[in-house]
Amino acid sequence: MLGCAVLAYTLAEIAERIGGELVGDGAVAIRQVATLANAGAGDLCFVANAKYRAQLSTTRASAVIVGMRDKELTSLPRIVSSNPYACYAKAASLLNPIERVLPGIHPTALVGEGARVAASASVGPQVVLGRDVEIGEGAVIGAGCYVGDQVKIGNETRLYPRVVIYHACQIGRRVIVHSGAIIGADGFGLANEEGRWLKIPQIGRVLIGDDVEIGANTTIDRGALDDTVIEEGVKLDNQIQIAHNVHIGAHTAMAGCVGVAGSTRIGRYCTVAGSAMIIGHLEIADRVNISVGTLVTKSISEPGTYTSSIPCLPHRDWLKNAAQLHHLTELVERVKQLEQKYSEGKIS
Amino acid sequence: MLGCAVLAYTLAEIAERIGGELVGDGAVAIRQVATLANAGAGDLCFVANAKYRAQLSTTRASAVIVGMRDKELTSLPRIVSSNPYACYAKAASLLNPIERVLPGIHPTALVGEGARVAASASVGPQVVLGRDVEIGEGAVIGAGCYVGDQVKIGNETRLYPRVVIYHACQIGRRVIVHSGAIIGADGFGLANEEGRWLKIPQIGRVLIGDDVEIGANTTIDRGALDDTVIEEGVKLDNQIQIAHNVHIGAHTAMAGCVGVAGSTRIGRYCTVAGSAMIIGHLEIADRVNISVGTLVTKSISEPGTYTSSIPCLPHRDWLKNAAQLHHLTELVERVKQLEQKYSEGKIS
Amino acid sequence: MLGCAVLAYTLAEIAERIGGELVGDGAVAIRQVATLANAGAGDLCFVANAKYRAQLSTTRASAVIVGMRDKELTSLPRIVSSNPYACYAKAASLLNPIERVLPGIHPTALVGEGARVAASASVGPQVVLGRDVEIGEGAVIGAGCYVGDQVKIGNETRLYPRVVIYHACQIGRRVIVHSGAIIGADGFGLANEEGRWLKIPQIGRVLIGDDVEIGANTTIDRGALDDTVIEEGVKLDNQIQIAHNVHIGAHTAMAGCVGVAGSTRIGRYCTVAGSAMIIGHLEIADRVNISVGTLVTKSISEPGTYTSSIPCLPHRDWLKNAAQLHHLTELVERVKQLEQKYSEGKIS
Repeated sequence: MLGCAVLAYTLAEIAERIGGELVGDGAVAIRQVATLANAGAGDLCFVANAKYRAQLSTTRASAVIVGMRDKELTSLPRIVSSNPYACYAKAASLLNPIERVLPGIHPTALVGEGARVAASASVGPQVVLGRDVEIGEGAVIGAGCYVGDQVKIGNETRLYPRVVIYHACQIGRRVIVHSGAIIGADGFGLANEEGRWLKIPQIGRVLIGDDVEIGANTTIDRGALDDTVIEEGVKLDNQIQIAHNVHIGAHTAMAGCVGVAGSTRIGRYCTVAGSAMIIGHLEIADRVNISVGTLVTKSISEPGTYTSSIPCLPHRDWLKNAAQLHHLTELVERVKQLEQKYSEGKIS
Repeated sequence: MLGCAVLAYTLAEIAERIGGELVGDGAVAIRQVATLANAGAGDLCFVANAKYRAQLSTTRASAVIVGMRDKELTSLPRIVSSNPYACYAKAASLLNPIERVLPGIHPTALVGEGARVAASASVGPQVVLGRDVEIGEGAVIGAGCYVGDQVKIGNETRLYPRVVIYHACQIGRRVIVHSGAIIGADGFGLANEEGRWLKIPQIGRVLIGDDVEIGANTTIDRGALDDTVIEEGVKLDNQIQIAHNVHIGAHTAMAGCVGVAGSTRIGRYCTVAGSAMIIGHLEIADRVNISVGTLVTKSISEPGTYTSSIPCLPHRDWLKNAAQLHHLTELVERVKQLEQKYSEGKIS
Repeated sequence: MLGCAVLAYTLAEIAERIGGELVGDGAVAIRQVATLANAGAGDLCFVANAKYRAQLSTTRASAVIVGMRDKELTSLPRIVSSNPYACYAKAASLLNPIERVLPGIHPTALVGEGARVAASASVGPQVVLGRDVEIGEGAVIGAGCYVGDQVKIGNETRLYPRVVIYHACQIGRRVIVHSGAIIGADGFGLANEEGRWLKIPQIGRVLIGDDVEIGANTTIDRGALDDTVIEEGVKLDNQIQIAHNVHIGAHTAMAGCVGVAGSTRIGRYCTVAGSAMIIGHLEIADRVNISVGTLVTKSISEPGTYTSSIPCLPHRDWLKNAAQLHHLTELVERVKQLEQKYSEGKIS
C-alpha cells in the first residue's frame, strides 16, 4: 500500500460528511482506509460482505463502517449505514482526494493554433494539443497525451499519460481516461468490391458524457456518419472495444475485455461482465445484466440477467462432453425414435 | 457529425467518378454523405439494406445511391449501382479526402543516423525515428510515434499518433496504422527448463503488405526465426492480437478482439468476426468465414462458414441447460441403455 | 529474418556454454539460429518436435540440436540434449544477446525531483520520470515511457518505448515490459448508490518480481487497498488484463488476450492459454493448466488441466447443435419420461 495519506479526520467528521450513523467514540483519528486483515491504528475498514464479519473480532482498525444488521457485531467506533460499501467509497475518497496538479502548460507541450486552455487547467510535458482544442477549468492532460484538432475536454476531466483523442471528439466534465485509451479512431467501415475492401471514411465523432471513466487501453471508435455516444456516468474497465456508432446509456458499467460491435444501442443502468461480446445492430434494454464471457446475438427487450457462460471442467471430463455437444442433433433424433417406438409399441 | 466538408460536387460528377448510372437531376450539389434519417440539403445517402427502404420516402437528402432493384423506389436524383455500398464508399471518400499534412520533419522529432525521410513525407512532433529508417514519399508519421532502427515505411502510409514499430519491420504502401498499435514486439517464445521459463530471442520481423489497415491498440508480434507476414489488403480492427509467425493472406478482414496464436496460416479473402480465437500451428484455407466468438482448434481446408458461437439465454434458463451440458455423457449413456432395452424387449 | 548476428561461435563453444553433448565436428562456425527449412551455412537448428525430423535429411544448416532419441538421425555436427528446446533457447540467446544501450539520460528526457538514476542505466528520449523514481543499474527506459512518482525499477530491467507505469509501483530486476503495457492504472472499483457509480480510490500498488516479462498492450491494475502482485518469473503475453489485487504465483505463464478479474489468486507453475477468462475472488492451485478460450468460474484446488473450449463446426451443423443446446433441459426430461415409461412397462 501507499504510505499513509497526509490528511486526518475524526470519525465524527467522516460520519458527518458521508452521512452514516456514528456509534461509539467519534473523536478517534482516521488517516486511511484498509482491509480488516491488514488495518492498524488510524485505519477505517468496512464490512459489506457477510464473509468478512468474522474478521471484525480480530481487526486492529480504529473504526469500521458496517451495515444495519452488523451494528452490534463490534464494539469498535463505527459508522452504520444501509449501504456500507457506498459509505466506504465516500470515506475513501475523502481520505484520498485526487492529487492536485499545478495549473499551467508545460514548456515541452505543443499547443495548436486557436486552442483555448483554461487558466486552472494543467497540460503536462510532451502533450500535443491540436488546432482549436478547448480544455476546461481544472482539467489535467497527462504527459504525452495527444488531443486532436477541435477536441473539447470538459472541466475537471483528467487524462492520464499517453491517451490519444482523435479530432473533433468531445469529452464531458469530471471524466477520467486512463493511459493507453484511444478515443475516436476510425470505425471498421469497409465495403467489399470484387474481393477487395474499400475504406469508408468515418466522419462521425465520439461524444462522452460527464462523470464517465474509461480504463487503460480501452478503444472507442468514432462514428461512421452519426456519432458514437457514451452517456453520463458510464464506467468502462480496461481493454474494452466499443465500435462505431455504439450508444451506451447512462450509468451502465462494463468490466474488462468486453467488445461491443457497431451500431448497437445499450440501455441505461446495465452491467456487462468481463469478456462478454455483444454483436452489432442490437437494442439492449435498460437494466440488463450480461454475465461473464457471454455472447449476445439478439436484441434484449426485458431487464434481467442473460448468460451463455460455460464453466470449465477437468479436461478429460470436458472432452467427453464436448464430443457429445457436436452430436446433439443425433441424440435428439435418437430420443425421438425411442419415443415413437414406445408410442407404437404401446398402441399395438 | 463533423461539419460539412468544404468540397462540393454535382451528382453527375460523382456518378462519373464512382461509376454508377445517373438518374434524375445531375446538377444537384452534393457536399457530404449522411444517414437517410439525418440527411439534409446537400447530402447524399445510400440504401444497401432492404430495411432502410422505408426511409427513402421521408429523407431530406438531396440525392441517394440505390441498388438496381430500388431504382424506381424514389424520385430523388440518384445513382443506381449493382453494388450500392461500394459506390457509397467511393462517394464518401471523394467527399472526405484524407486530410493533407504539410511535409517536413517537426523540430521536436528525433531522426536517427542514416535515416532517409522522403521530402514529401511528414514526421510529426516528438516522433523518434531509429537508425537507418526509411520513410516513403507522402508518408505521415503521427505525433509521438516510435519507429525502430532499420524500419521501412512505404509511400503514402499513415501512422496515427503513438504507434510503436519495433526494429527492422517493414510496412507497405498506403497502409493505415491507428494509435496504440504495436508492431514487432517479441513473440511469446519460451522454453521450459525445470519449471522456469527461458526466453527465446525473437529474431524474425513483421512484414506488412500494401493497403493494409491496422486498428487501434492491435498488436502484431515479430517472428521467432522467420517473419510474421500480413499480406496486401488485409484489414484488422482494434485490439486484435497476432502472434509470431502468423501469416495472413491478402484481403482477409478481422473484426475487433480477435486472437490468432503462433505460426497459424490464414488464407486469402477470409473474414474473422469479433472475439474469435484461432489457435496456433493451423492452416486455414482461402475464403473461410469464422463467426463471432468462435474458437478454431483445427485446420480448415474447405471454404465456408465455421461457428461455435453460443447465444445467451435468460440466466435461469441458461443455468439449467449449462448444468445438463456437463452431464451430456451420462445422458447419451441413458439413451443408449433405453435403445438397448427397447431392442431387447422387442426381441423377447 | 534479420541479418546474421555479428557474433560467431564454434559449435564446441556453444555446447560448452549451453551444456549438451557435442557429437561431430565441434569446429564448425555458428553465427545464427534458423528453421530447418530456411537454414544455410553458419546456421544452427533444432528438432524438438517429431514432425520436423524429416527435414533433418534436407536441411542446409551447419549444425543441429536434437533430443536423445534423435541422436543418430543425422550426421550433421550436433548437440544432443534431454531438453533440446531449452538448449536451443540458450544457444539463440548466446547468438542474439540483448542489444547494449549506451548509458545516460537523453537530453529530451524529464527527470523528476529526487529521482535516482543509476549511472549505467539508459533513459531514452522523451521519457518522463516522476519524483523520487529509482532506476537500477543497467536498466533501459525506452523512448517516451512514463514512470510515475516513487516508482522503483530494478537492475537490468528494460521498458520498451511508450510503457506507462503509474505512481508507486515496483518492478523487479531483469524484467521486460513491452510497448503499450500499462502498469498500475486504477482498478475497476465502484460502489453503487441509487443507480449511480461511486469511484473507490485505488490506493494499492503493483509489485512485479524479478525476471517477469509483460507483453505489448497488457494492463495490470493497481490494488484497491492491498497490492496487485506478480511474482518472479511470471510471463504474460500481449493484451492480457490483470485486475486489481490479483496475485499470480511464480513461473506462471499466460498467453494472449487472457483476462483475470479482481482479487483472484493464481498459483505457481500454472499456464493459462489464449483468451481464457478467470473470474474474481477465486483461488487457483499450483500447476493448474487452463485451456484456450476457457472460462474459470470456481476455485480450483487440484493440479491438472481444465477446459471449456468449444471447437467450431461448419456453420449449418453448428446451428442445429446450438439450437438443441438451448433445449437440453427438455431433452433430459424426455429421456427421463422414456425411462419411467419403460420401467412401468416392464413392471406391468
